[in-house]
Amino acid sequence: MSALTLISETKMFNGRQARYRHFSRSTQCDMTFAVYLPPQALQGYRVPVLYWLSGLTCTDENFSQKAGAQRFAAQWGIALVMPDTSPRSDDVADAEGYDLGQGAGFYVNATETPWAAHYRMYDYIVEELPALIEAEFPVTGQRSIFGHSMGGHGALQIALKKPERYAAVSAFAPIVNPSATPWGQKAFAAYLGSDRSAWARYDSTELVQTATRTLPILIDQGDADSFYPAELQPETFVRAARARGFNVQFNMRPGYDHSYFFIASFIETHIEFHAQALGL
Amino acid sequence: MSALTLISETKMFNGRQARYRHFSRSTQCDMTFAVYLPPQALQGYRVPVLYWLSGLTCTDENFSQKAGAQRFAAQWGIALVMPDTSPRSDDVADAEGYDLGQGAGFYVNATETPWAAHYRMYDYIVEELPALIEAEFPVTGQRSIFGHSMGGHGALQIALKKPERYAAVSAFAPIVNPSATPWGQKAFAAYLGSDRSAWARYDSTELVQTATRTLPILIDQGDADSFYPAELQPETFVRAARARGFNVQFNMRPGYDHSYFFIASFIETHIEFHAQALGL
Repeated sequence: MSALTLISETKMFNGRQARYRHFSRSTQCDMTFAVYLPPQALQGYRVPVLYWLSGLTCTDENFSQKAGAQRFAAQWGIALVMPDTSPRSDDVADAEGYDLGQGAGFYVNATETPWAAHYRMYDYIVEELPALIEAEFPVTGQRSIFGHSMGGHGALQIALKKPERYAAVSAFAPIVNPSATPWGQKAFAAYLGSDRSAWARYDSTELVQTATRTLPILIDQGDADSFYPAELQPETFVRAARARGFNVQFNMRPGYDHSYFFIASFIETHIEFHAQALGL
Repeated sequence: MSALTLISETKMFNGRQARYRHFSRSTQCDMTFAVYLPPQALQGYRVPVLYWLSGLTCTDENFSQKAGAQRFAAQWGIALVMPDTSPRSDDVADAEGYDLGQGAGFYVNATETPWAAHYRMYDYIVEELPALIEAEFPVTGQRSIFGHSMGGHGALQIALKKPERYAAVSAFAPIVNPSATPWGQKAFAAYLGSDRSAWARYDSTELVQTATRTLPILIDQGDADSFYPAELQPETFVRAARARGFNVQFNMRPGYDHSYFFIASFIETHIEFHAQALGL
């Protein structure tokens, strides 16, 4: 029996867009995710998986509905997996404000009360979800990862720690140095406590400085983004990554903001970047 | 001074996605619409306008966010205009249910109490909005029109009555014979009263039978659409239109439903159809 409960499914670009619910060992609650299987996967071929990590306030639905990514996933023969941004339920701790608690898991394993019971998004994204996807869907073991804002932070810090698991990493307007920027500092203090060495293990700009294996990195940033530069600081990370030998493509996009309209405008180039890294 | 109040604007595909509010003479209340200007329009060229009419429950935002249309509007150099689906405010009549009242204007001029005061979406879409768009934005007088479900009904009945004003008309899963199907019957009885001759003036399958001028028509319909065939009945219209000499391209799409995932899957071919009709 499958561990997955199907919530909905829809044909899209000759592939299949679906939502599932399942009980997560990592977060100790039901989690919802979306998956897009391209037509190639429905025709019996195993395809690689591109994981998308969303930003603050998002669920699995924002990217599914607004990015226009499925068109290019279908074209390249890549499955998309779009998890939620935190554990959610009445029993899961929450906070006032959009930047902490439900919808704001920051892709870490929380160690502090009251968060530690459920906020283990790092384990969920890195271990549990890929194992589930690879057991339940017609996919290969090839993975790549990308995200937006808080999800760009998630994608980068995960790929930097597990470069052997991902072909490449890309991000739209990522938080790259959360230990030094307000959203990150608030969330890390709550989830990880006051010990800054715990923060560093989830901070891409810190992690990249001790990285021993590289992978290709693509970052797009709009210069009309209302959170740029204060929350995002991409140049700090790009400099540090290039100094460690990473091949970083960094695109400043004049006039673009932080929204899904920005993401939609450049999604094609991101999926093509991952397709190339995946050898497609 | 412009009659328009800018609500928001965002760069997208090198063009400009914006929302505006204005007081409408037709509906006697503030109306909101979205417009996408392609890069060509921002570079000083006047471009044709493709009007999108949304379905039940939608505002100007659904198509703006979910269809992926701006990619192709940018490519072809077409402006998109996306109006709301009804008058809205606390002072505007409403009803229980999603299929009557606010969000469900059906693109008619209501004659019945309490609807007649504000529900004049036909005049708004056919006369007032195009005049406003052509006065305020860098566009030509060339127009084309398309829509989804209730908005497909709107686009078809408008284009059939005013074929000289539109290069072409297309629709996703349109209501084509509202006098004979449940959503349409409920709305027409409320807005137009019991006189069936009033209904016929907004019923595409009736209108096409007396049409004296044709224009190109494209219709896509998913066969897994939960409202097909009961509410939609596209074949009825297609037969009647072809009998009158209309060039109708009708695509049954196996496995597709009524959602924006369906629309996104075929939006490129619809915009290309309008581009061709507009001589681009």
